[in-house]
Amino acid sequence: MVEPPAVAVIFTSTRTSADEQGYAVMSKRMEDMAAEQDGFISVDSVRDPISLQGITVSYWRDDEAARSWKRVQEHVLAQELGRTTWYVDYTVVVAAVTRTYGNVGLGNEEDS
Amino acid sequence: MVEPPAVAVIFTSTRTSADEQGYAVMSKRMEDMAAEQDGFISVDSVRDPISLQGITVSYWRDDEAARSWKRVQEHVLAQELGRTTWYVDYTVVVAAVTRTYGNVGLGNEEDS
Repeated sequence: MVEPPAVAVIFTSTRTSADEQGYAVMSKRMEDMAAEQDGFISVDSVRDPISLQGITVSYWRDDEAARSWKRVQEHVLAQELGRTTWYVDYTVVVAAVTRTYGNVGLGNEEDS
Repeated sequence: MVEPPAVAVIFTSTRTSADEQGYAVMSKRMEDMAAEQDGFISVDSVRDPISLQGITVSYWRDDEAARSWKRVQEHVLAQELGRTTWYVDYTVVVAAVTRTYGNVGLGNEEDS
């Protein structure tokens, strides 16, 4: 489980129905590339195939690591295709992790 | 779009296949109740029906508003059913929103 300090990048989007295969390939490629960046911690990604709404949350060591990933050249191209082709709408929320809990690993509801 | 200051509560979970109807009813009820709480801003929720993984991100005015919602009695009962029946695993990450951008509303990629 992610522990503070860390930065969460919450990407919420609605897909168009265009270019399903191209999108799937780029999606996988971006996930693989992100995982290799300095400061990457983890990523969770879910899309509902009916509503086409998706949420991807990536976690980074700090804001600078998150910003660096945004500027990686191939990722910049993917973002451009996202804006022109793949997404009806999207929002990105960047947030500093302050506390975490859950039933995975060590964090069993220690918070309240 | 959410703007800082705000607090994001990122709830990531994997559903069991148990009690689909009970879960759907409670889910809807919790979403409606959350929306009535003082300090609630908005919520986004997506679940993949195949992997059963889901991400729900709720946004709150501040940490106290997020904590208050966690303590509401009917929500406490829902959390207990979540732990015992509905979720294989779950994690909650609480984070302070620092910046936002996107192509919805006013925030057109003003950030970099």
